[in-house]
Amino acid sequence: MSISKQANQQTRSFSLPIGIFDSGVGGLTLVKEVFLQLPNEKVVYFGDTARVPYGTKSKETVTHFATEIVRFLVQREVKLIIVACNTASAYALGELHKKFKRIPIIGVIEPGTKAALRATSSQRIGVIGTEGTIRSRAYERAFEKLNLRKSKSTLRVFSHPCPLFVPLVEEGWLNKKVTQEIAQEYLAPLKNEKIDVLLLGCTHYPLLKKVIQETIGEKVTIIDSASETVKEVKKLLGEKNLLRQSKLPPKHRFYVSDAPEKFQSLSKHFLGLDYKKVSPIHLKRL
Amino acid sequence: MSISKQANQQTRSFSLPIGIFDSGVGGLTLVKEVFLQLPNEKVVYFGDTARVPYGTKSKETVTHFATEIVRFLVQREVKLIIVACNTASAYALGELHKKFKRIPIIGVIEPGTKAALRATSSQRIGVIGTEGTIRSRAYERAFEKLNLRKSKSTLRVFSHPCPLFVPLVEEGWLNKKVTQEIAQEYLAPLKNEKIDVLLLGCTHYPLLKKVIQETIGEKVTIIDSASETVKEVKKLLGEKNLLRQSKLPPKHRFYVSDAPEKFQSLSKHFLGLDYKKVSPIHLKRL
Repeated sequence: MSISKQANQQTRSFSLPIGIFDSGVGGLTLVKEVFLQLPNEKVVYFGDTARVPYGTKSKETVTHFATEIVRFLVQREVKLIIVACNTASAYALGELHKKFKRIPIIGVIEPGTKAALRATSSQRIGVIGTEGTIRSRAYERAFEKLNLRKSKSTLRVFSHPCPLFVPLVEEGWLNKKVTQEIAQEYLAPLKNEKIDVLLLGCTHYPLLKKVIQETIGEKVTIIDSASETVKEVKKLLGEKNLLRQSKLPPKHRFYVSDAPEKFQSLSKHFLGLDYKKVSPIHLKRL
Repeated sequence: MSISKQANQQTRSFSLPIGIFDSGVGGLTLVKEVFLQLPNEKVVYFGDTARVPYGTKSKETVTHFATEIVRFLVQREVKLIIVACNTASAYALGELHKKFKRIPIIGVIEPGTKAALRATSSQRIGVIGTEGTIRSRAYERAFEKLNLRKSKSTLRVFSHPCPLFVPLVEEGWLNKKVTQEIAQEYLAPLKNEKIDVLLLGCTHYPLLKKVIQETIGEKVTIIDSASETVKEVKKLLGEKNLLRQSKLPPKHRFYVSDAPEKFQSLSKHFLGLDYKKVSPIHLKRL
């Protein structure tokens, strides 16, 4: 390739958008972090609202869905893809790396795990997530891998699925008495284990942070993997000279596989922002 | 067609299975009714566990899913199809009748509505269901149509969505304190309206019948559309001479689009029966 062609490609690459996908609207908590930490970047978001939730479905099915969506985002020429969904990160990331070798694909498991390891003093960490994420043991594996590198201390990880948290968020019951009671039921085993860090292993859970913090106790540090993931993405884009340079305000695109209106109203809820343009994508087009 | 060919086709038709489908496992409450009321009939069941739930999704998407599944059941040569899912009945039944003219397709809305009309004295009926079923106003339309035929009394229908009931059932929290509290929250508006009949417009809800009855009060008659629908199917098959005659015990087939093991364990829960054979069907094959 000639030098001018290479330079052209470089110019083109860093002006491309970041692709982000989730099973539904939950990943917008991560988009919000991109807007905060990388305000100059363009975002192409895909929410699989026709097949949400992923958390109760099998590894094969979630991997199949994730592969279709990554293909869709690659066609939209993104420079990097973030798998905002914890279940898809847990089940599909290895397969996605194998299938799409030419584009960096970042999941939310490792960044969250690293942050939890930095934050713990007692080496007793709790993880909550969907049934799929917890059953996959992806967080346990990540802790094992990252902790071995760091020290030989006796790290203990306690994980617990919280299947009703997502429907509670989608119902908008963020601070009701029943929400508190359900949180008490789910978090009691972790409280008994005297953890000092609790990792929120699902993009919906930051919306319940207040209830979760009150239930688990003020002394426990809550880690939200969305924020940690975007920190890593920022670092990576900087290292690869892929940060967007333009002074023009970035334009974003939002796609969903079902019910764009509902997505718009929930995005107000998640992002506090009002997006007029959410495009429906028929599943047949994936 | 010659008389012997006609006779052959007739023989063949009544020995064919009944097709039943639902967004997931909920429709098994209806299968249970078929086993009770039509113990000689063969059943082919399809649960769309890869894309469950339908209740939060749009009319277009639910109709697209339902069409794919009916095509699948028609290929399996069933003599009649029951749409066990209330949301699919509410959104897709009209379209299914247009697309598949040669096979009787029965939804759950009309049979439930008829039974509620028979049961009410005060003419004040409550309906609960998913967001999609309630938003579709399918029950209101059915009440209007059937009631006009019957009398000119001032029927009042009060409907309310209960989005957390399905996840509560899937979590197996059938009789917890929080389940009671959530039921109180959802049913309070209906209680204030002094209804005398409550129609359960979702196949999952019969599993919460105890809590619902305690909450709404013992004087309110609870109508479960699964049982009513099977009564109508039995009548229809009798009229059309399509009841299975064989003395051999019927064989059933269960298909799901995801996680057959989970379906098996939940089917124990719903049906109290243990099915060894649940076949996974990849979405690409629909």
